[in-house]
Amino acid sequence: MDEMFQKNYPLLITGVWVDGHGADIFIDEQGVIQAIGEDVRKQHKGEAEFIIDGDGAIALPGLVNTHTHAAMTLLRGYADDMVLQDWLSQKIWPLEAHLTGDDVYWGTRLACLEMIRTGTTAFNDMYFFMEDAARAVTGMGTRAVLCHGFIDLGNPEKREAECRATEHLVSHIKTLNNPRIRAAVGPHAPYTVSKEGLTWCAEFAAEHTIGIHIHVSETEKEVNDAVAQHKKRPVAVLDECGILTSRTVAAHCCWLDEAECRLFAKRGVHASHNPTSNMKLATHRAMPYPWLRAAGAHVTLGTDGCSSNNNLDMFGEMKAASLLQKFFWNDPTLLPAPEALHMATAAGARALGCGNGTLAAGEPADLILVSSSTACNVPMHNATSNIVYSCNGSAVETTICNGRVLMLEREVPHEKEILAGAQKAATHLVKRAMQS
Amino acid sequence: MDEMFQKNYPLLITGVWVDGHGADIFIDEQGVIQAIGEDVRKQHKGEAEFIIDGDGAIALPGLVNTHTHAAMTLLRGYADDMVLQDWLSQKIWPLEAHLTGDDVYWGTRLACLEMIRTGTTAFNDMYFFMEDAARAVTGMGTRAVLCHGFIDLGNPEKREAECRATEHLVSHIKTLNNPRIRAAVGPHAPYTVSKEGLTWCAEFAAEHTIGIHIHVSETEKEVNDAVAQHKKRPVAVLDECGILTSRTVAAHCCWLDEAECRLFAKRGVHASHNPTSNMKLATHRAMPYPWLRAAGAHVTLGTDGCSSNNNLDMFGEMKAASLLQKFFWNDPTLLPAPEALHMATAAGARALGCGNGTLAAGEPADLILVSSSTACNVPMHNATSNIVYSCNGSAVETTICNGRVLMLEREVPHEKEILAGAQKAATHLVKRAMQS
Repeated sequence: MDEMFQKNYPLLITGVWVDGHGADIFIDEQGVIQAIGEDVRKQHKGEAEFIIDGDGAIALPGLVNTHTHAAMTLLRGYADDMVLQDWLSQKIWPLEAHLTGDDVYWGTRLACLEMIRTGTTAFNDMYFFMEDAARAVTGMGTRAVLCHGFIDLGNPEKREAECRATEHLVSHIKTLNNPRIRAAVGPHAPYTVSKEGLTWCAEFAAEHTIGIHIHVSETEKEVNDAVAQHKKRPVAVLDECGILTSRTVAAHCCWLDEAECRLFAKRGVHASHNPTSNMKLATHRAMPYPWLRAAGAHVTLGTDGCSSNNNLDMFGEMKAASLLQKFFWNDPTLLPAPEALHMATAAGARALGCGNGTLAAGEPADLILVSSSTACNVPMHNATSNIVYSCNGSAVETTICNGRVLMLEREVPHEKEILAGAQKAATHLVKRAMQS
Repeated sequence: MDEMFQKNYPLLITGVWVDGHGADIFIDEQGVIQAIGEDVRKQHKGEAEFIIDGDGAIALPGLVNTHTHAAMTLLRGYADDMVLQDWLSQKIWPLEAHLTGDDVYWGTRLACLEMIRTGTTAFNDMYFFMEDAARAVTGMGTRAVLCHGFIDLGNPEKREAECRATEHLVSHIKTLNNPRIRAAVGPHAPYTVSKEGLTWCAEFAAEHTIGIHIHVSETEKEVNDAVAQHKKRPVAVLDECGILTSRTVAAHCCWLDEAECRLFAKRGVHASHNPTSNMKLATHRAMPYPWLRAAGAHVTLGTDGCSSNNNLDMFGEMKAASLLQKFFWNDPTLLPAPEALHMATAAGARALGCGNGTLAAGEPADLILVSSSTACNVPMHNATSNIVYSCNGSAVETTICNGRVLMLEREVPHEKEILAGAQKAATHLVKRAMQS
């Protein structure tokens, strides 16, 4: 079995459910779905080097997490139940000041392990020491779009350093030449990056045709502050600086107004809904999904980092999104299960440029098998409802990314080593912070 | 290993974490914790017939679900994303009209399986065919407080029938003479039961010194309707009828006002918070936990039934409660992790009268072991935070109720048979409903 994790093979998956129909799936050595349907096993059995017995599992496209800070797994449970500003200034930032590249390596490995276990095959990551994050993702086998969190606080010297760090990361990731790993530009937020910084990010991203990853209008305060400072709302500032593009993922978006939702649709921006984080940190307003939907904007889903969630389970996030939208906008018909699943798959994949996020011939073989012989899927009146409202990530049995098997029957290679390494890194990080 | 599930044995659990300290636990044949602490293995090794290697797991009191309709597992995913009234009248009630006692048996078995897997050892259940529910619980080994959902809609004939059904259930459960299973009186809600019915329920419950289980102020509409009909709010009506006692569990409580929270505290009523259900059905207001807490009222936690959740995982419910309170009441410090865990353990156990819901000598051996070697518990900066915010029920390895092992290293006896039986019952139920 260990052999299977080593490289890509022509792979046949038999006896799974795809959109309510029994099907087999054949994946080629290049990591592409070659065939999917009823008779696939007959046609491709000879070519397959490995056969996975699907045993009636539900096959889904791999889930896509469009906003996280993966290495913050190391801070899981380090500080909770605090006011945002105190939490950042008293707990998170002082600890982060002691982070090393190796910490980010172990934190990102732990994040990948957790994502593989819970069915996420691609994620959009903003943090520091991103070359070490790339090293972790290379080994773990998922897809990732990695960006350096660009923060200049209006300081030109700091801005220069952030530009160089961004250029460096983008050029480093090019040299990796790994189709699973891409770079993006990561202006942290309109309130932490100057207009000059934002404009540089937009131009650099356009020049390299790479993504932009940014926090937008998470809190009411930042919107009010922008209006006080710039006499305009933050989204207008971003648009002036060229940040709003179809390569842009905007996280949170809790306090968008209706006109901003229409502008997002017009510019093709991908909004990343982060309901758990928003509830935990009490943003007091849910992303205006009804307005974004009415405007035809792209809406995706993300967990945010582990210090404001505190896990990376996209199943939990689908449920949280659907529940929060219904509750906040006072409409139990809002964000029904199929839309939540679409946000976590197709919409996410398109936002990160990794295929269409569907199970079809010609698509990248990023897919997961969800057990149907577990209580959360019994009875099976409606598989999509069960996936969104009843199951969590522990129902995922098998995870495949780019045609490579990353988890098989709940076994992920090197799990113990990863857990031990991450625990050690976290313990030492806290020790260093306390000694300083 | 199978032997272990058959009956109670003197049981030694070694090497677990209890409140941050390494400990062993010794449980006697009567299902009582006899000793807990560091040196327990030395003193009790000779007496133990079985030893469970805790392997560094976190030991917690069994979780207590104070509001559910267990057999509604059969309706999981049958209808979602609908307006409450349409959902009930077009989907849930027509299906429930075809329910049989055997359906309730299989639905309750499935519910118990799911609860055992996710660490719940006791639940407060309101539904129909409750003798069949009792039959299921008897076999599955959890604790339950069972009541017949009493609905008279102001009709004296129906009221008489409901009184007889209630008397019958209470007397039946007495004859079972099972310390794990108790009866309660279940007036459904102030808007579905007449004052005469409520008064009868209160008096009958007092006479037999048993619990009362009722839905209270879930929606704004029912509060407004009560004011229009009775010229007083529903809680005042309940108090007049004698329903508000220290044996009463009131579910939902979303629309309580501050005076009602104080009255709950004064009467010793146990409020059951059901955040997932409230969000899914868009009650538009979260239980006023800050007022209940300030008044010193008892607040517990429940999942509600599987058609409005759609699972019975109390880990998910702890997280949902903490997140929803923070978000709705706009305070990220509200309902911190230790309070959420208290609601799901000690507060719930006291509400259902099954001990203090703590791990201590003399307490009933209702306890669970949560794996510490799983990503949700790495790193271990704060076990309580991980339990509430990071883990879900799949982290539970071992579940013990009344000293009996119900799950060991994630194995529950007869799981396949229960899943198959429940699936069959659900399929047939839908067929019958569609043919009628």
